[in-house]
Amino acid sequence: MRQSELFGKTLRETPSGEVAKNAIFLERGGFVHKTLAGVYSFLPLGWRVLSKIENIVREELNKTGAQEIFLPALHPKENWEKTGRWNTFDALFKISSPHGQKYALGPTHEEIVYPLVGHYLESYKDMPVRIYQIQTKFRDEERAKSGLLRGREFRMKDLYSFHADDKDRDAYYKIVADAYHKIFSRIGVRAIDVEAGGGTFSDLSMEFQIPCEAGEDSIYVCEKCDFGINKELIGENKKDHEIKCSRCGGDTTLKKSSEIGNIFPLKDKFAKDFNLVFKDKDGAEKPVSAGCYGLGTSRLMGTIVEAFSDEKGIVWPREISPADVHLIELSNNDLKVKTDAEKIYSDLKSAGLDVLYDDRSEKRAGEKFADADLMGIPYRMVVSAKTLKENFVELKMRSSQEVELISAREAINKLKRN
Amino acid sequence: MRQSELFGKTLRETPSGEVAKNAIFLERGGFVHKTLAGVYSFLPLGWRVLSKIENIVREELNKTGAQEIFLPALHPKENWEKTGRWNTFDALFKISSPHGQKYALGPTHEEIVYPLVGHYLESYKDMPVRIYQIQTKFRDEERAKSGLLRGREFRMKDLYSFHADDKDRDAYYKIVADAYHKIFSRIGVRAIDVEAGGGTFSDLSMEFQIPCEAGEDSIYVCEKCDFGINKELIGENKKDHEIKCSRCGGDTTLKKSSEIGNIFPLKDKFAKDFNLVFKDKDGAEKPVSAGCYGLGTSRLMGTIVEAFSDEKGIVWPREISPADVHLIELSNNDLKVKTDAEKIYSDLKSAGLDVLYDDRSEKRAGEKFADADLMGIPYRMVVSAKTLKENFVELKMRSSQEVELISAREAINKLKRN
Repeated sequence: MRQSELFGKTLRETPSGEVAKNAIFLERGGFVHKTLAGVYSFLPLGWRVLSKIENIVREELNKTGAQEIFLPALHPKENWEKTGRWNTFDALFKISSPHGQKYALGPTHEEIVYPLVGHYLESYKDMPVRIYQIQTKFRDEERAKSGLLRGREFRMKDLYSFHADDKDRDAYYKIVADAYHKIFSRIGVRAIDVEAGGGTFSDLSMEFQIPCEAGEDSIYVCEKCDFGINKELIGENKKDHEIKCSRCGGDTTLKKSSEIGNIFPLKDKFAKDFNLVFKDKDGAEKPVSAGCYGLGTSRLMGTIVEAFSDEKGIVWPREISPADVHLIELSNNDLKVKTDAEKIYSDLKSAGLDVLYDDRSEKRAGEKFADADLMGIPYRMVVSAKTLKENFVELKMRSSQEVELISAREAINKLKRN
Repeated sequence: MRQSELFGKTLRETPSGEVAKNAIFLERGGFVHKTLAGVYSFLPLGWRVLSKIENIVREELNKTGAQEIFLPALHPKENWEKTGRWNTFDALFKISSPHGQKYALGPTHEEIVYPLVGHYLESYKDMPVRIYQIQTKFRDEERAKSGLLRGREFRMKDLYSFHADDKDRDAYYKIVADAYHKIFSRIGVRAIDVEAGGGTFSDLSMEFQIPCEAGEDSIYVCEKCDFGINKELIGENKKDHEIKCSRCGGDTTLKKSSEIGNIFPLKDKFAKDFNLVFKDKDGAEKPVSAGCYGLGTSRLMGTIVEAFSDEKGIVWPREISPADVHLIELSNNDLKVKTDAEKIYSDLKSAGLDVLYDDRSEKRAGEKFADADLMGIPYRMVVSAKTLKENFVELKMRSSQEVELISAREAINKLKRN
């Protein structure tokens, strides 16, 4: 990618109306643009980050045996009336067509996935069913000021599983929890397992929370075993120091955090609403045992910016960075330097590395470095008249002040190894 | 993919309410499920086909220098009022939020992309801008009976380009037309270039049409040079035999067809609505020259089923087939046959081939073959007691009656070559 051709530009100023750090840095860095409150356009760099996150989610879920599907955003009103949620679901977008139909705009997909599974499910032999999608969801939030942490339109992975009994469901539940931790670990974030309330239809609900100041949740995190409890579960009168870990009894610290994922068993409510039953080995008709597993991919992107940034900008974890390396030429219109930088650009690409190449000859070093710090690609490689003369490049990690002077060949090998 | 674990089932009967061949075969084959008229859920096999189509589109557009972005579905009413289309756009879904906002649900994205580009565009140096997205679109169609050919919710690629002058725009226009033909050729369909009307803001509009009986368009196709004219452009009083090719003057034949793509210059209407101007080399402020390039990916999937099917089912072109080969075991619970089939399944996967493995031991040969014909994977490989004894497999193309008896190794090599 040549920066001179890239759609989107860095901005020096804080965009008007933004207060959340993730929104400010993502807009200033040219990753997203706010179309309206809680609704963002993803520019090429931002879409690349989100796609990398979503592909990691996809790969790890496929390993659990889950199959990817794609459900509609337009939901018939009747389905939401069957579950009783047409009038009770918080922030449901509703559409009345002049042709007579009424639709909900999907904020979640139980109302679609239950009748869909019911269409194909006959006997225990058809289970388990494990299906997921990665898709745009809609919620008519009254206010949306947290950037990608709370959107009116946002991206989410939702997985649903259906089993012949609770034992099989609980076994898969654990597999998905492990897959979530693999996803977080590949991305390079640490998520805390949190005991949580799950609404009215759940008893064993778990959240995956990433501590960050801008998060909308508050969790008590155990100082010993790192397990968390959502503050919502704690009685109003309790003082912070009284809260002990529910797993090991250790002391806890209250932290602001962002809920990235959750998994919870779906009791038989929806199965009853849609009469989702199957014929078991003994010939008897039984209700399915189901689970629901959410993961907010655009919220994860915003949370990473909250958690991985400094005063200069973003510090992307390598696996989801829009590029592996930010190559910067300081040619000052010196043709030799330009030619050398072009050659290194080509070599980096041939080595299979993703490169953002700041080939803008008219920009000064200070501006280019400020852009690189703002955009947050983990490695920065500089080619200038000085480096050309001495036959090296400057290699620097975004997260460190140290500059290494090594040959382009060594730098490429190092980037390939790391 | 093991068919025993696959979500979705083949259906023997025509689904109620469906009249279009693409909908009937796609639902019967377990590719999609109708949520409501014009709104489909994509099951694992169907999502796989659509994803393959969309990845081909993505690869070919990236080669033109276009950059992928992702724009929201929720559009502010004000933007649609600026273009005057809030009350005139056919089939626009509208949402009134109890919080006061009014939104359109995006059927196309000029109202979003113009102000977005305006946010970043300053001078001629910032151009060309070539951005596209692959995304769900919404149209409140009064009737929707053509399966994936006309949806209320459908998938589409839309590309927008912005240039400093018409010459540059027209050059890119040709590049995109070539990319479209590459896409069609990779998928294995022949699309006809059609001269077309493009609404009020266009003079040189082109459509890409695939002839098929279920298509909603009618085109006169030149018998000599294959160029087409949309019937909409022809005066009411003209008789069919009077219509000559506008390119070479040859005789034409009237055909039903499905419009898969279109490209057209966007005159300065939207640029004026959103005051999209730039500073040219001479310092003067000028309006941009823009183009718009659509391609309906879910409609293309439906059209392919219309064009590539016989009385038994679908015949997928290899590049977008949900699998390269449909491996069928006729073990009749013979453990030796089962073991052999499992080994071949593993070998096929090791050879890098996509395999759908019909491992359902309880199904009879007739049912398995009927399913294979319905599902339309281009190659079928059968393992049975007979083939095991004689040390070969049966290899058959979906599009032919001939059955080849060759060793599993030879069959794998043949599949890899083709």
